[in-house]
Formats: sequence, structure tokens, C-alpha cells
Amino acid sequence: MHFTALLRTIAVLLIIVSAFMLFPIAFALHYGELESIRFFFYPMAGVVLVATVVLLLTRRIAVTLSHRDGFLLVTFSWIFSALVGCLPLYLSGTIPGFADAFFETMSGFTTTGASILTEIEGLPKSMLFWRSLTHWLGGMGIVVLTIAILPLLGIGAYQMMKAEAPGPSLDKITPKITETARILWFIYLGLTVAETALLMIGGMNLFEALTHTFGTLATGGFSPKNRSVGYFDSGFIHIVVTVFMMLAGMNFILHYGLITGKLKKVFANVELRVYLAIFAVATLIIAFSLYGRAYASFGVSLRHSAFQAASILTTTGFTTADYAAWPFFAKAVLFTLAFIGGCSGSTGGGPKVIRIATLFKLGIHEMKHMAHPRGVFSLRLGQGALKKDMVYSISGFMFLYLFVLLFITLVVASGGNDLTTSLSSALVTLGNIGPGFGRIGPTLNYAFYPDYIKWFLSFAMMVGRLEVYTVLVLLTPRFWRA
Amino acid sequence: MHFTALLRTIAVLLIIVSAFMLFPIAFALHYGELESIRFFFYPMAGVVLVATVVLLLTRRIAVTLSHRDGFLLVTFSWIFSALVGCLPLYLSGTIPGFADAFFETMSGFTTTGASILTEIEGLPKSMLFWRSLTHWLGGMGIVVLTIAILPLLGIGAYQMMKAEAPGPSLDKITPKITETARILWFIYLGLTVAETALLMIGGMNLFEALTHTFGTLATGGFSPKNRSVGYFDSGFIHIVVTVFMMLAGMNFILHYGLITGKLKKVFANVELRVYLAIFAVATLIIAFSLYGRAYASFGVSLRHSAFQAASILTTTGFTTADYAAWPFFAKAVLFTLAFIGGCSGSTGGGPKVIRIATLFKLGIHEMKHMAHPRGVFSLRLGQGALKKDMVYSISGFMFLYLFVLLFITLVVASGGNDLTTSLSSALVTLGNIGPGFGRIGPTLNYAFYPDYIKWFLSFAMMVGRLEVYTVLVLLTPRFWRA
Repeated sequence: MHFTALLRTIAVLLIIVSAFMLFPIAFALHYGELESIRFFFYPMAGVVLVATVVLLLTRRIAVTLSHRDGFLLVTFSWIFSALVGCLPLYLSGTIPGFADAFFETMSGFTTTGASILTEIEGLPKSMLFWRSLTHWLGGMGIVVLTIAILPLLGIGAYQMMKAEAPGPSLDKITPKITETARILWFIYLGLTVAETALLMIGGMNLFEALTHTFGTLATGGFSPKNRSVGYFDSGFIHIVVTVFMMLAGMNFILHYGLITGKLKKVFANVELRVYLAIFAVATLIIAFSLYGRAYASFGVSLRHSAFQAASILTTTGFTTADYAAWPFFAKAVLFTLAFIGGCSGSTGGGPKVIRIATLFKLGIHEMKHMAHPRGVFSLRLGQGALKKDMVYSISGFMFLYLFVLLFITLVVASGGNDLTTSLSSALVTLGNIGPGFGRIGPTLNYAFYPDYIKWFLSFAMMVGRLEVYTVLVLLTPRFWRA
Repeated sequence: MHFTALLRTIAVLLIIVSAFMLFPIAFALHYGELESIRFFFYPMAGVVLVATVVLLLTRRIAVTLSHRDGFLLVTFSWIFSALVGCLPLYLSGTIPGFADAFFETMSGFTTTGASILTEIEGLPKSMLFWRSLTHWLGGMGIVVLTIAILPLLGIGAYQMMKAEAPGPSLDKITPKITETARILWFIYLGLTVAETALLMIGGMNLFEALTHTFGTLATGGFSPKNRSVGYFDSGFIHIVVTVFMMLAGMNFILHYGLITGKLKKVFANVELRVYLAIFAVATLIIAFSLYGRAYASFGVSLRHSAFQAASILTTTGFTTADYAAWPFFAKAVLFTLAFIGGCSGSTGGGPKVIRIATLFKLGIHEMKHMAHPRGVFSLRLGQGALKKDMVYSISGFMFLYLFVLLFITLVVASGGNDLTTSLSSALVTLGNIGPGFGRIGPTLNYAFYPDYIKWFLSFAMMVGRLEVYTVLVLLTPRFWRA
């Protein structure tokens, strides 16, 4: 392992992350929160100083990072970002406990949106802006990671999609990683400007528009309002956020296709079709279950159901309504969506649509095989046939995901929590969703958990965000051998 | 399809099933429940009459049943057995609703043990005896089915174990199906006599001993007592039932090995080792979580935790204590066990130990592969290497199982039931366990569900009992084509 090279890369990353603290400083100046400034300035200055010293003391060596270096780099990038990122919140006393501050920041960088804050609106705006900015940075990190870096490590649903499914692929954009990353940044920035503008047209101020845009595009879910997006009683805003959540849950390569006008190719993408179909079906089912019970108007039912279905499916976690008060059937549909997640190559978490679709096909395929054991069936998804090795690998991923899910459930239950709360805490942290059911429902938060569960769930968010393997592999003795 | 041959086979089966009604008639005579007798006699006479007419009117043709005939035969065997078996309960008014009577009987034949009865002890003993006898018949049916018949259809975990795992195999007993079935019957009968005798030594009368033995060996769980095995305040009885539940959850082929003294070979069986390890670990964890909280004595904690862990793992569903009142952590462990089930070739339900162990290995295997992509790893279980095709097929089964699980959850939730109740109803009917969590907890029952959910859950029990594929394949249009 090339520890020097790793150290240098992480030093550069932390300089970049802390440089983004200039934005909340600007907001602090604007809102006259002068006493907050130093809590951004000291960590920023400290990180830049230490990182620069590290860069000066170590020699630049031209090495190609190995496979195993990649796992360490990715995992420690998120850990150190959260450690640095939580300093303003902790030092300023905005979040007094260190476990709490770390949880909140890891929730930000992993674009989970699970919060330990009970009263949000009274906090300094600069701190809330920084909290939301961690989403935006984490979201961009994930897109670059899953599309440009993880495939090199042999990880991730995207690689599988690239190899197996029809539609535009990584190679169609450009073969060079840096060039790909540059294009993805522009798409992300373009979507940010567009949603911010639309939300301001809808009546938000710049602070509200930016923070909600960050929460949307990263499929994060932090809101500076106690009632989340539900604070804004505007159909227009709800619809804008719904549309942009769905855009954020799409493969970002497809956005490039949309921009360059290859619409036919984009809509031929099988993962996108399944994703849209799941969204449409879930929205309609929930809307009918709400109509006449939770809401008198079908239009209002449809608006809230579309918003909440998109929010859970894309793993955002915003809310416009207290879905805990909805009929149980509507809640069960949301619970089911929480097992799916966004598309590969998006900012969404969860197991991803392509994996679920593949495994569903596998189940059907085996059933056909049972009925006609001598028949020859190929496992197809859209126009492409799925290779056995790929399906094998997806199965392995999915079972590891489910085993980890049950393990987290047990750890949370060990704190004396009921089954619904324990299981949904596991599901929504591992899946990077945020709010769940039971004691972590949409109007509630994670504050009541003891510190050991907060640390564990912070870890769970990271495991889920980095496609499980990336982190767990570091825990195997085999990884550290030779 | 050979409908005539199918019809004849089912006619013979129903004659056998209804002939067993002679036993409850004997109990009715013994307990002086003379008014109950006709409710056994009429259905029995009717079935024998109709079945005999069918046998006389159709010609005996020497055909080999095809693959597809097998699926129809197995599924309709269970449906017709439940239809005939529910008649005494329904006609006598013991269970006034037909949906209720069918649910209870399907729960019996599938060895689930889910009940709609709210007050059990006041019912006629002959009826309760019949109810428990359906377990015993269903359990034997399943052992013969999974060891002798399903492998011919290419279904089932046992086939996989036979092909892949070390230890005694089907061929070691005898190659002929009828001979195998005969040996299995003797083992089952021997275990029945042994447990009945032990329970009578423990203080039960013959009626109590037989009904509880039927519930144990079939991993069913029906008890003629409202408080299940907890009615008997005897450590001896609790331990006997625990041991026999564990024996019933073992592959019956291994019992043959035990009898013939091949102990080394039996304990080399990898599925048995994993099964015992899961039981031991779960028992200890639960015992420590109960000690000092639910019970003051560690011995008592251990006895109840061993009983309940064995009961859920083997999918029996007996209880000695109201586990709904246990700490949440203990409940979460039981919830996790409900995803596993017994060994292949046992009377236990669920996905089976061998499948879960294989998929766990697959997850680990893929992780190793990530860390060392150029390394060569074989997927091993015990001493044997697992073939890719087999793992592929197990993955397909497991995902179908999980999709069906979520689908049942949604259907139950559509009746306005909370998540814990809906999810655990799905888990314990599909897994043939019986009692669950929430409104179907250990001291509660399924009576409150509307009829459409009772019918649906009856179907779910059958789907789970017949290894999912067997039933679902009948719902595909492809099955019915040429």
C-alpha cells in the first residue's frame, strides 16, 4: 500500500472540503452571524495548515494507486471529510455532543439526511447552510466515485449496467476520467442553478432555495425547516422538488444524453424505464389509498403521494406531509420502496433499481426453468442478455446488504428499541434515506439514541453509501495480508 | 397433462386423509362427545364414496406422471386435503366461518400453526385432536415430498444438499422411492412414540401428549391449550419439547444415520453444524438479554430462550412464555431467526439453513473477490465446493421468496394493519411459523383479519410450504402452454 500517496490525496481533498467553508462564512456575514465566523475560519485554517505541512513534508511520488489503495482512499475520504466537516457544528455549540455532530455530518456527506436536531429553525443560518452544503459535496463525490472511480475497482451497479444494459454508456461520453468528471460537474452545477432559480420563482429566498436544492440534487434530505418541504404550502414548489428528486435519482450519464438530444437512446435505457414505472405505480397506489382518507381532494393526494414516493425511492427523505399519520397501506408501500433506491450512477442510495430488476428477473427465470427444465431461457433485461457472472456478483452484493441490514437491526434493538424503529433505522441509514418509521418517523429525529448507536449508524450510513463492499473489505484480515 | 391419473391419485390421497378421521372418532367416543361423531363420519363417508366412484369410473392407465403433472399433483394435494380436512370443524360449528375453518386446516396441513381460535380449551377434544392430526399428516407429507418427490421435479434445497454437501445422502438409504418413504415413516412413527411417552412421563395425559407431539414433530405449533406449552409448568416438558423440535428441524436422512450408528458422518453434515450453531448462539444471546430483566434466574432465562429459539428457528411456533413482553433485543433476535427456517429434508419451513448458509458464503466470497480480483477463490461449504449453477438457482429462490414476502406484507397492510403486524404476518405464514409480532403475537391470533386476508394468508402458507416455485409456477401462462 502506498501510504504516502494516500496521505497526500486525502490532504488535498480536505483542503478542498474546508475551502467550501467560505460559503457559510459569506452567509454569516450576510445574516450578521458574526460570532459564527470563527467556527468556520479556525477549522479551515487549521486543516489548510496541517494539510500543507503534510504535502510539504512528504515527497510527491508518481505511483499508480493499487486496487487496495482505492478502498482505503474512498473510505478514509468520507471519514476524514466528516471529521473535518463536523468541527464548525461542534465547536460553535450548534450541536453540543461530538457523536451528534459527527452523525449529522456523516449523514450530510453520505447524502442520508438523518438528523439529530430537534429544533432546526432557531439555529444560525450559516451553520444550516454548511449542513446542507455537505450534502451537495457528498452527492457530487458519489457521482464521480460511482461513474469514474468505483468501476476501476470492480465495484458497483454502474459497471454492470455499462457492461450489460443497452443505452448510453460511460465510453460514449469520454474515455478519460478527468474529462468525465468535468462533464459531470457541469451537469450537477447546471441542475443546481436550474432548481435554485425555479424555487426562487416559487417564492423561496436564496438561502432556502440553495439549501433545498442541495438536499434535492444530492438525494440528501436536510432541510433548514422543521417541517421540511412541507413548510412551503405551494404546489409549484412541491412539484419542482419532486421533478428534481427524480432527476437526481437518474443515472447522470443519461443527463448528458438528454442535453445532447439523444432522447430515444435515453428512454431506451431499461433501468430508467423500470425506475419511472416503479415511481408511477407507487404514486398511484398511494394516491388512491390517501384519497378520501388523508385528503379530501384527489389532486392533493396525488401531489403528496408523488412527492413522498419520489423522496423514498430516490432515497432523499424530504417530506411535505407527516406520512406517519397516513393509512398503513400507504406506509407499507413506502417501506417497500425503501428496499429499492435510485438508479446506478445517480446520487441516490439503496441497492439500486438495476440490481433489484436483475434479481426479480432471476427469480422469474428460475421459475420458468422449473416448469420446463429442458427449455433454454436466457436471462434478459431490456434488449441485453445478462451474463451469469454478473448476476452471481449482484446476488452476492444483495445478500451481504440484507445480512448487514439485519445486523444493524439487532444492534439498534439492543438499545431497547421496538422492531419497527430498529428495522427502519437500519433500512434508512444503510439505504441513505433519512427518516423512517416508528420513533424515527418523518416528524421525529435520531436525537434519542445513545451515543454508541449514533456512532454505529454513522458507520452504517458510510457502509451503505460506499456500496457495502468498499468499507467491509477493510474489516477482513485477508485485505491486510500481503 | 394426465388429468385422469391426477384425479385418481388425489382420490386415493383423500381416502387416506379421511380414513384418519377414525382417530378423532375414537377420542369422541372416549370423551363422550357423541354429538361430534357425525361431523367426522359424514365427510369421511362422503369422501370415500365420491373417491371410490371416481376410481371406478376412470380407467387405470399406466402412465408416468410428467414434470408438470407433479406440480399440479403436489399443489392440489394440499388444497383438497385442506378442503376435506376443514369439514368437521366447519360443519360442527366448532369454527363457524368457512374462511376460518379453511385457514385453520391449511395452517394444520402446512404445519404452520397460525390459528384463528380465540378460546381453545372449551372446544370438543375430538375436534382439537383432528386439528393437531392435520399437522402430523402434513409433516409426514412434507418429509416424503421433499426427500423423495421434489428432487425428481428439480426443486428444493435437499437436492442441492445431496449434490453438494458432505454427509449421508439419499442414495445411502436406498435408491427406491417407496422404500425410502417406508423408512421415513418408521422414523417419524418412532419419534412420535418416543416423544409421546416422554411427555406422559412428564405428566401429560394421552390426549395432551399426542397433540403436542404432533405439533412438535411436524414443526406445526397447534396446541389444545390457550397458553400453548406454557400451560405446563414443568422444566422437563419444556426441555423434551425443545429437544424434539430440534430433532424435527433436522434432515430426516440424518435420523437414519443416527439410528444406524453413523454418528461421525451425521455430525460432519455442514447444514446440521450451522443449524446447531445458530441455535446455540441465539439461545445464549436471548438468555443474557432476558436474565435479570424478564426472569430473575439465569436457568429459567436459558430454558425459555432455548425453547423459543428452537420454536422459531424450526418454524414450530409453540410458546412457553409471552415473548411479546420480552426486551426488544430478544424479539429482534427471534425476528432474525424467522428468516432462516429448519434444515432441508425436515418438517421445518422457511428458506432453510443450507440456503441461508450458501448465500452468506456467497456474500463473503464476492467480498474476497473485490479485495483480490486476480485471486482464485472457490465457494466452499464444509468440505464441498459449491457449483455456480446451484448458487444461481438458490439466489433465484431466495429473491422470489423475498419478493413474495413483500407482496404479502402489502396485501395484509391493505387491510389497515401496522407494519410490524403486516410484515410479521407475511414472514410467519410464508415461513410456516405461526405466531409473530404485533397483533399476531404469541398470546394473540388471526381471528381479527377480514376473510379476504384469511384466504390470502392460507394461500401464502401453501406457497411457503411447497417451496414457492411449486405453486407459483402454476400461475404462469407458460406453464399451461403445450
